[in-house]
Amino acid sequence: MNQHIGNQTVVFGTPPVIINTASIVGTKEGEGPLARFFDEVLTDDKWGEKTWEKAESKLQRETALTALKKADLPPSAVEYVLAGDLLNQCVGAHYGLRDLDIPFLGLYGACSTMAESMSIGSMIIGGGYANNVMCVTSSHFCSSEKQFRTPLEYGGQRSPSAQWTVTGAGCAILSSQGAGPKITRVTTGKIVDMGVTDLTNMGAAMAPAAVDTVTAHFKDTGLRPIDYDLILTGDLGVVGSDIFTELMLAEGYDVLEEHKDCGKMIYNIDEQDVHAGGSGCGCCGSVFCGYIYDELINGHLKDILVIATGALMNPQMVNAGESIPSIAHAISITMD
Amino acid sequence: MNQHIGNQTVVFGTPPVIINTASIVGTKEGEGPLARFFDEVLTDDKWGEKTWEKAESKLQRETALTALKKADLPPSAVEYVLAGDLLNQCVGAHYGLRDLDIPFLGLYGACSTMAESMSIGSMIIGGGYANNVMCVTSSHFCSSEKQFRTPLEYGGQRSPSAQWTVTGAGCAILSSQGAGPKITRVTTGKIVDMGVTDLTNMGAAMAPAAVDTVTAHFKDTGLRPIDYDLILTGDLGVVGSDIFTELMLAEGYDVLEEHKDCGKMIYNIDEQDVHAGGSGCGCCGSVFCGYIYDELINGHLKDILVIATGALMNPQMVNAGESIPSIAHAISITMD
Repeated sequence: MNQHIGNQTVVFGTPPVIINTASIVGTKEGEGPLARFFDEVLTDDKWGEKTWEKAESKLQRETALTALKKADLPPSAVEYVLAGDLLNQCVGAHYGLRDLDIPFLGLYGACSTMAESMSIGSMIIGGGYANNVMCVTSSHFCSSEKQFRTPLEYGGQRSPSAQWTVTGAGCAILSSQGAGPKITRVTTGKIVDMGVTDLTNMGAAMAPAAVDTVTAHFKDTGLRPIDYDLILTGDLGVVGSDIFTELMLAEGYDVLEEHKDCGKMIYNIDEQDVHAGGSGCGCCGSVFCGYIYDELINGHLKDILVIATGALMNPQMVNAGESIPSIAHAISITMD
Repeated sequence: MNQHIGNQTVVFGTPPVIINTASIVGTKEGEGPLARFFDEVLTDDKWGEKTWEKAESKLQRETALTALKKADLPPSAVEYVLAGDLLNQCVGAHYGLRDLDIPFLGLYGACSTMAESMSIGSMIIGGGYANNVMCVTSSHFCSSEKQFRTPLEYGGQRSPSAQWTVTGAGCAILSSQGAGPKITRVTTGKIVDMGVTDLTNMGAAMAPAAVDTVTAHFKDTGLRPIDYDLILTGDLGVVGSDIFTELMLAEGYDVLEEHKDCGKMIYNIDEQDVHAGGSGCGCCGSVFCGYIYDELINGHLKDILVIATGALMNPQMVNAGESIPSIAHAISITMD
């Protein structure tokens, strides 16, 4: 039987299985250390489309179709697709997935979307509402820069704390049965706003949200960092990761040994001119659905906690004097 | 036990109860025929805030707090809040609800958000994951016009098919127990895009999505229109409602008798200069959480189908030659 434990955590009676995943990334991500774990690496970040937004939509569509193919499932076998992205009105998801003909639940969790979709997806499977659910998300460096910061043509200088939005998409298919890693627990985050107003320092805005959710997870479950092989944050980057581990220590949890961050893993930070590392929904999306899923399947990882972190940032609100609220959702994944 | 029936519908083993609702609307909505059913009518649509966006955030916050007060629940008794709105990055929800300290799941379903949040909220309650869930949404005429169309100061002429975005918010609290109308079934919509590209005719874009979901609902359940006292669409308005009833008839379902539309109900269409009627997340949100909930509680309505419809419209995509994808989600509500 499903259980709600502590304040924010759910434990599944019958844990949903991640039966397959897919990931497609852009050119820069294809030059990074995880290149061989992605299903496809683009040679042209516009992918033959006329706009960056259409290219991002295509990323979601092709990643979803690749996952279905790998899982050997027709779209009609999937009861729900849960998806979102960073673009205004989530157009990456809507245009990318409109032809799938699958009941659609749209999410907005900024870069926390991969974990949010897998959280709700797990609850849908665990509640007996579906056999198969698809969780999809994406981001694109060019569409994000254009929307959140400055046009690429402007050629603005990037601050050292700035992160590089990953061009990529991830799709995970959750199922009520089958083989693969299982989602055993879900800890849903609260909105946390520590007053950060720097549009070029998302790591600092998001780290406190990650700390809030991960400490809640440990309090709710009674687990300790050592119970996990890996505590994987989505896109805190170099700056945010340091804040995260330091604040966790202040809360009494030493996660230095177990913690890794997708934003630090996807690029060769020192060589690829990405400043504080990767970010974007597609960062956690592609790294989890590529490299991490592989590591689970081949037995190198057994028990992991995945925390996708989202800066709920709207530049107009920040320019009007507001700070940046953030959120982080965590899921425990176990490979038997 | 929960069941997935047909292609898109879920039937709850133990139907979640809508234990209370709240709604707050703007000045124009307070001059409409449903004024007395709202908990509060603003006298100033900026509500003392510096921007329309901050006013919309305040709408979500105050509506959520009003609902909690009416239900006599502290925020700590609510396990999840599900919310979203029309603004880029859903800032109405994020800024409005950030201080609630409740685990947050952000949604983007455009004007379908009230039904989407109640759908997922019901699944969360029905899955045994929570005792209480809050579903919140809002829209604001001024923030919407500014973001989706032209600045108010521009004073552009409105086309006859244009709808008036409702300034208002709705909040429904779902619970695993207690008295009130019950959510018995949920039919989740697919993205439907019939090629409409007119930014001033959302009704035409959304009507086919409503038809798709409602016919799926009837096919999945074996029910007929006559099984409902009311088939309530969210914001098809005058133009979209006509298309909806006509297309439903072509599908073999005569809903003329049972169909009403929140966008036609909230204003005196002929007198309030709202052209094709109301729209926006807050349209279905405030009408359902105000007037309709009252009618259920006092026994005037017994079995209803609520279909909130969303135009997943992004003006930049439409200006780049794309059409407007739409979606509609339906929930069956029964008052014993």
